[in-house]
Amino acid sequence: MTESPNPGFQQIAIVGLGLIGGSLALDLRRLHLAEHLLGYDQRPHHCEEALHRNLVDSASTNFDKKLRDADLVILATPVSSFPQVLHSIRPQLGLHTLLSDVGSVKSPLLSTIQDYPELIPRFVGGHPIAGGERFGPTSARTHLFEGKRFILTPTDATPLEVTQRVQILWEALGSKVAVMNAAQHDQIFAAVSHLPHLIAYASIQAIIGSDQEEVLQFSGAGLKDFSRIASSSPEMWTDIFLENREHMLPRLRHLKELLGQLDDYLENANREKLQQFMQQAKFARDQWIG
Amino acid sequence: MTESPNPGFQQIAIVGLGLIGGSLALDLRRLHLAEHLLGYDQRPHHCEEALHRNLVDSASTNFDKKLRDADLVILATPVSSFPQVLHSIRPQLGLHTLLSDVGSVKSPLLSTIQDYPELIPRFVGGHPIAGGERFGPTSARTHLFEGKRFILTPTDATPLEVTQRVQILWEALGSKVAVMNAAQHDQIFAAVSHLPHLIAYASIQAIIGSDQEEVLQFSGAGLKDFSRIASSSPEMWTDIFLENREHMLPRLRHLKELLGQLDDYLENANREKLQQFMQQAKFARDQWIG
Repeated sequence: MTESPNPGFQQIAIVGLGLIGGSLALDLRRLHLAEHLLGYDQRPHHCEEALHRNLVDSASTNFDKKLRDADLVILATPVSSFPQVLHSIRPQLGLHTLLSDVGSVKSPLLSTIQDYPELIPRFVGGHPIAGGERFGPTSARTHLFEGKRFILTPTDATPLEVTQRVQILWEALGSKVAVMNAAQHDQIFAAVSHLPHLIAYASIQAIIGSDQEEVLQFSGAGLKDFSRIASSSPEMWTDIFLENREHMLPRLRHLKELLGQLDDYLENANREKLQQFMQQAKFARDQWIG
Repeated sequence: MTESPNPGFQQIAIVGLGLIGGSLALDLRRLHLAEHLLGYDQRPHHCEEALHRNLVDSASTNFDKKLRDADLVILATPVSSFPQVLHSIRPQLGLHTLLSDVGSVKSPLLSTIQDYPELIPRFVGGHPIAGGERFGPTSARTHLFEGKRFILTPTDATPLEVTQRVQILWEALGSKVAVMNAAQHDQIFAAVSHLPHLIAYASIQAIIGSDQEEVLQFSGAGLKDFSRIASSSPEMWTDIFLENREHMLPRLRHLKELLGQLDDYLENANREKLQQFMQQAKFARDQWIG
């Protein structure tokens, strides 16, 4: 029996005890990937719930001196809060504490970190491609990251050793780690994740804006799956849309052009063009799903 | 043990042996809802497959004299083929044969049936809210309609007795039957089904049209569920979009307006409006899913 390599963190601090932060805590403990887990969340009821569920060894709404002993701090708060969080934790960080995050947009934190030169060589960004439409520490669960992708976004100044330790940590959690730069990440995820979420919310609005009342009761399994992501946290996704709007806007505008084409095909009953459009989309999806 | 009422059909003919027609045949036989099942499909390999899987007792590419003995004929071909199919089967129909269908758009057949006055009092439209992205007789399966909605769309001239017999048939198949008129049906389903399918196809096109190659490999479960319906039959859905374009176009244009609003909110980083938009959508979906 081979044992997977251990990244060698004694104390890990998780800032933000929601679905991702809480699930991370559960698995770090389950897999013995840290001796001690420090939890932070500005919402007292999140701290209480996290302690109640034994997700972490301590939970606090304030960044205290305990943070000094953490080998690794992982930010799991909404991406727009990162500047404020970094400002607050900086005085409490130990000299060798590594810093990472689990945010869905990578460039803004990279830009914020430039204001903290001493943190730059200790920072590597991260994004687990896992989650769900439920949120908060009550929805934390084990095995959330198992078999899922994890994107690691080192800066030009991140030493290879730092990237590798965090990579080993996520691989120990069962994730398949890919490394790319932050801008590349944000461009890809604007397309494959952020735009689909925006469209799912917009589609529900388009449906309930129809003339018939209570039309949703007539829908089938198709709409249920299609719109599942529209039950995700509005706060979190508004945050992601805004943080990544530079890459979202071109994608949204491209979609609007495509819908303009479809409008034209429908208006003119252009069966050939319509069918070609659907065939191309089906082909691309079937290739992807395999 | 109470037995569910039997609609009393001896011979049922199914025209079109795809996913819906084939699954219907399987369950009619399983539940002893017909003594004899006649299958028709213009594609010889569908007929062969249907016989091979014992979906029907006979299968033919031509409407033959056997049709005369059918108590009920159910059209399960693409909706755009209905005028041609009606034209072909008319000479072979018995004097008392009832006629129904399983098409996703109801008004066009209603309009076609006006050309066949003798059929009007024997016709009631139907639409099972069931299906899947796979198609053809090989994907036929039992229990497809169990627990699903079924919409019955009688005409003003459909005798109550005809509507009731077809309703009893679908209830025996396990469906929850609702009755409404064809126009109302088409308006509702433009919103809750046809528009989401169009958007799913368009979203895949928007994603693969991004600058990065092979971006789909980085997507998570969210996109997979969101885009599942984009793997549905392009031919069938092009048909549905065109047959229901009268109701599709206003919905598509409303969606374009909503995306225009979102573009504006993103461009101006209007967090409040963005969040309100997502909250309303999430609320509506959560209310629906319960």
